[in-house]
Amino acid sequence: MAFKTQIVSVLRQAEAAAIRSARARSARMTNQAVMSLRISTEAAVGAPAAFRCFSISPARPWRQTQARRADRTHTSKRYPELKRDSRFATLTPEHVAYFRELLGEKGVIDAVTEPAFQDDVEPFNSDWMGKYRGHGQLVLRPGSTEEVSKVLKYCNDQRLAVVPQGGNTGLVGGSVPVFDEVVVSMGRMQTIRSFDDLSGTLVVDAGVVLEVADAYLAERGYLFPLDLGAKGSCHVGGNISTNAGGLRLLRYGSLHGTVLGVEAVLPDGTIIDDLCKLRKNNTGYDLKQLFIGAEGTLGMVTGVSIACPQRPAAVNVAFLGLKSYEQALRAFREAKSQLSEILSAFELMDASSQDIVRTVRPDARRPLEGEHEFYCLIETSGSNAEHDTAKLEAFLEDVMEKEIVEDGVLAQDETQVKALWTWREGITECLGHLGGVYKYDLSIPLPELYQLVEDTRTQLASKGLIGDGDEFPAAKVVGYGHMGDGNLHLNIPVRRYDSAVEQALEPFVYEWIAKRQGSISAEHGLGLAKKKFIGYSRNETLVSLMKQIKKTFDPNGIMNPYKYI
Amino acid sequence: MAFKTQIVSVLRQAEAAAIRSARARSARMTNQAVMSLRISTEAAVGAPAAFRCFSISPARPWRQTQARRADRTHTSKRYPELKRDSRFATLTPEHVAYFRELLGEKGVIDAVTEPAFQDDVEPFNSDWMGKYRGHGQLVLRPGSTEEVSKVLKYCNDQRLAVVPQGGNTGLVGGSVPVFDEVVVSMGRMQTIRSFDDLSGTLVVDAGVVLEVADAYLAERGYLFPLDLGAKGSCHVGGNISTNAGGLRLLRYGSLHGTVLGVEAVLPDGTIIDDLCKLRKNNTGYDLKQLFIGAEGTLGMVTGVSIACPQRPAAVNVAFLGLKSYEQALRAFREAKSQLSEILSAFELMDASSQDIVRTVRPDARRPLEGEHEFYCLIETSGSNAEHDTAKLEAFLEDVMEKEIVEDGVLAQDETQVKALWTWREGITECLGHLGGVYKYDLSIPLPELYQLVEDTRTQLASKGLIGDGDEFPAAKVVGYGHMGDGNLHLNIPVRRYDSAVEQALEPFVYEWIAKRQGSISAEHGLGLAKKKFIGYSRNETLVSLMKQIKKTFDPNGIMNPYKYI
Repeated sequence: MAFKTQIVSVLRQAEAAAIRSARARSARMTNQAVMSLRISTEAAVGAPAAFRCFSISPARPWRQTQARRADRTHTSKRYPELKRDSRFATLTPEHVAYFRELLGEKGVIDAVTEPAFQDDVEPFNSDWMGKYRGHGQLVLRPGSTEEVSKVLKYCNDQRLAVVPQGGNTGLVGGSVPVFDEVVVSMGRMQTIRSFDDLSGTLVVDAGVVLEVADAYLAERGYLFPLDLGAKGSCHVGGNISTNAGGLRLLRYGSLHGTVLGVEAVLPDGTIIDDLCKLRKNNTGYDLKQLFIGAEGTLGMVTGVSIACPQRPAAVNVAFLGLKSYEQALRAFREAKSQLSEILSAFELMDASSQDIVRTVRPDARRPLEGEHEFYCLIETSGSNAEHDTAKLEAFLEDVMEKEIVEDGVLAQDETQVKALWTWREGITECLGHLGGVYKYDLSIPLPELYQLVEDTRTQLASKGLIGDGDEFPAAKVVGYGHMGDGNLHLNIPVRRYDSAVEQALEPFVYEWIAKRQGSISAEHGLGLAKKKFIGYSRNETLVSLMKQIKKTFDPNGIMNPYKYI
Repeated sequence: MAFKTQIVSVLRQAEAAAIRSARARSARMTNQAVMSLRISTEAAVGAPAAFRCFSISPARPWRQTQARRADRTHTSKRYPELKRDSRFATLTPEHVAYFRELLGEKGVIDAVTEPAFQDDVEPFNSDWMGKYRGHGQLVLRPGSTEEVSKVLKYCNDQRLAVVPQGGNTGLVGGSVPVFDEVVVSMGRMQTIRSFDDLSGTLVVDAGVVLEVADAYLAERGYLFPLDLGAKGSCHVGGNISTNAGGLRLLRYGSLHGTVLGVEAVLPDGTIIDDLCKLRKNNTGYDLKQLFIGAEGTLGMVTGVSIACPQRPAAVNVAFLGLKSYEQALRAFREAKSQLSEILSAFELMDASSQDIVRTVRPDARRPLEGEHEFYCLIETSGSNAEHDTAKLEAFLEDVMEKEIVEDGVLAQDETQVKALWTWREGITECLGHLGGVYKYDLSIPLPELYQLVEDTRTQLASKGLIGDGDEFPAAKVVGYGHMGDGNLHLNIPVRRYDSAVEQALEPFVYEWIAKRQGSISAEHGLGLAKKKFIGYSRNETLVSLMKQIKKTFDPNGIMNPYKYI
């Protein structure tokens, strides 16, 4: 009891003390006991410079970009069962001439008539992981909704297949061609159309980069109600098309709730002007909802209207070490109950995920010194720093007292907040250091969420596919994700892609999910990667209705073919 | 300055003081000045008993209910342009026999073969306002999703038109027959199917009454993320079908964001099992969204899965008097900024609306003694009473200091919270005291929201239709609503329904709205009342797509015909 009182007392002192003395205090505190609650400092979590490698670089200028991973296998070779649909026309110089006339020089990257430009097309042909690569030869970059309309109408009339592309940061191969589809990139539509600083309604072109939109809002005291690792590159239109979930869905809700309006172009060139700026509009079916998560298969999203919340004045982050998943569940329950309206993220990371970050970034100072089976990152966002700190400290005190948490640190300033986040957000990039990664983005009822990671380890081990030596294709099974949303990212970093590993994983993972009424794609979408597996999360009735809707919107099937629908 | 300090000091004392002394203190404070901030007490706002008339009574047992307002005109007479669709079959004793065999005695109210039961059918034939009345002769009350499926399949095969009905609390005539449609009532499907107290996911039958669902959640520390005046009668399924908005959309968001899954039956009997319990599920088009707000035109919602937030430990309500709409706008801006994450309602009421409540309830004690042009009700909901009170007090202090607010009271306990709310929630019922009401439920960009009320007054006055004497059909133009959501309820209480008033109002109101890109139905839906006016808020492209979707789901058009689609 005396020990607990000491922790409480340290906490109180910590809040009152100036940050300049934090370094010395931290050093003293880490010597106390594993069960102490430490205050993170720059020294403890590493100087910000050390974390720079985790940041996502902004979208590259299109002409200067070299083809990435041009040596990678084409999707058509990796998926030999995929055949080019012969209903689609093949690009001719006449087609290209039409587009050049319509869009001008800056609107066309043409390797159809000028094969030397194939290198410039390549970045649009493959995804950032280098996992999917198409045979596209033409990229169109319309500068307005009207141009998008003319492009699509022409493609529809000529039966040219189209792949809409935003920031091309997707993880399921949804935004790149498989064969010779025309890439229609939104990269030139980057205008912030309007912002109402009373209602918080933002209207933007689909090609606005998420981070740009958020920075614009930050200057006005508002926040984009979505945040994700790829924010520096991804487009708002792509976020809507993939129904991105991200880090703070727990707090700000799904795009189905926050998106107020969508402007989209149907394949026949019809512009759907549903760019409503109102919070409430009950006048018939809410058709914009169909575009949220359609992955470009119904039309192209060209504009978005979204309700933005006030930017929180205070953001606090705590990083905890726990001995089991059961304790993480208990911590989540307490966080929901005690932090309630200010809880903005509850992230889970297993020991493997943190080992990988440490391996890739050996110089980075760790938030916690001891070893723990699990780590949780808890973020609060609120309007009053004093109140939020009081709530978070009371929570931390409570979970320490109840022995739910083994160790923890609390960020003292914005730099430390960012530094702690890199241990969560950096995982995705670090995972690929060995070669490749098999990625699964799953929703699972919380009590069983982590069981899948353990069952997958057992599955791969039983087939002799996982281990420390080079003879094993798989190195680890890693689990992390948005625990607050029941969303697990299951990742299997591999030394090489190997069909034996793939066969061990699929349909194993999907069957495991289907048994528990989970989702085989929580937030990444289906794209090409999961096109065969929709049946594990959606029954035949639903898939059949989806097909009817697809046919209504896109009778010639030109929009993003070969993907999930 | 000394005066302002005094207010602050009174506020601080008030918080610390025990409720037992509040009455005396309030009496003392009201003598200070109009510009004082008073603390409401039972004495000030009236004992709770005085407000009982405002509560919505629970749904009546169906057999014991007498036909309400049976003298009211049939809808078919009020809208002579509506003709019964001859494609639909007429009910025969054979049809009734089938349903009786399928559903048993308690599942059928039959005035087809037993005209004596017409009185029992009447409550299902007309809406609670007595504004719409159909010629229905048969009410079906299935007890399970399978029974709903069989009922709809039979109706579809036999071409019998169907009106789905929940709690029948709608305001646009959407839930009652026009001609002889079969009423399918969800009144017997009232099971709470499951609740996960970790994720907060609730799964219920569509017929569960909103207040029952919320009471169930209250016992478990959770809250239904929707609240509205009719909560004691309306069904959760009806809430979803009408995309109800209600009092706290500002805080908990739209049903498009909170509803996780829907179980629905298509007219051909197909059961759509999309009762997902996951927060994230990106596997194809989100078809459940189409049922949210479809008003029963696509199928029948039989089950709902919804994400519920933690129940706030602290709820505070302040009631303010303001001298102009501009000041109300300023107050809203400050409330958003200062109360941020704990702001759960910001309601506007004009002087006329409060006059009517006072006229109908002359014994009720008013929250504020002076006269003000506008009143705002501000509610906060949070997890920490001390923090919330501090935030709300600081806000009130600030808006007094800035002279945004003329006077205000702060509820001291739950009874007072409820009492203050009756001055907002009671308006709807009190409006009808003169005879009838023309009701408009509109979304308008905030700066112009109240202008419509003034323009409507001018419009009616210019035609000599409004005034104090009995010779004028219209008595007042009243404006109130969910200001936080940009949602105005424009109401014109009339001494008698009069086509001259109707012609003065329509299309005047709709044209006014269309010019400002507002919505002609913010949250009530279109139903029968606004079926002709969808074009003011949705363009032809959207309406045409809606029709195609309607045809996909309901090719024979049996679901809720004659309504908006």
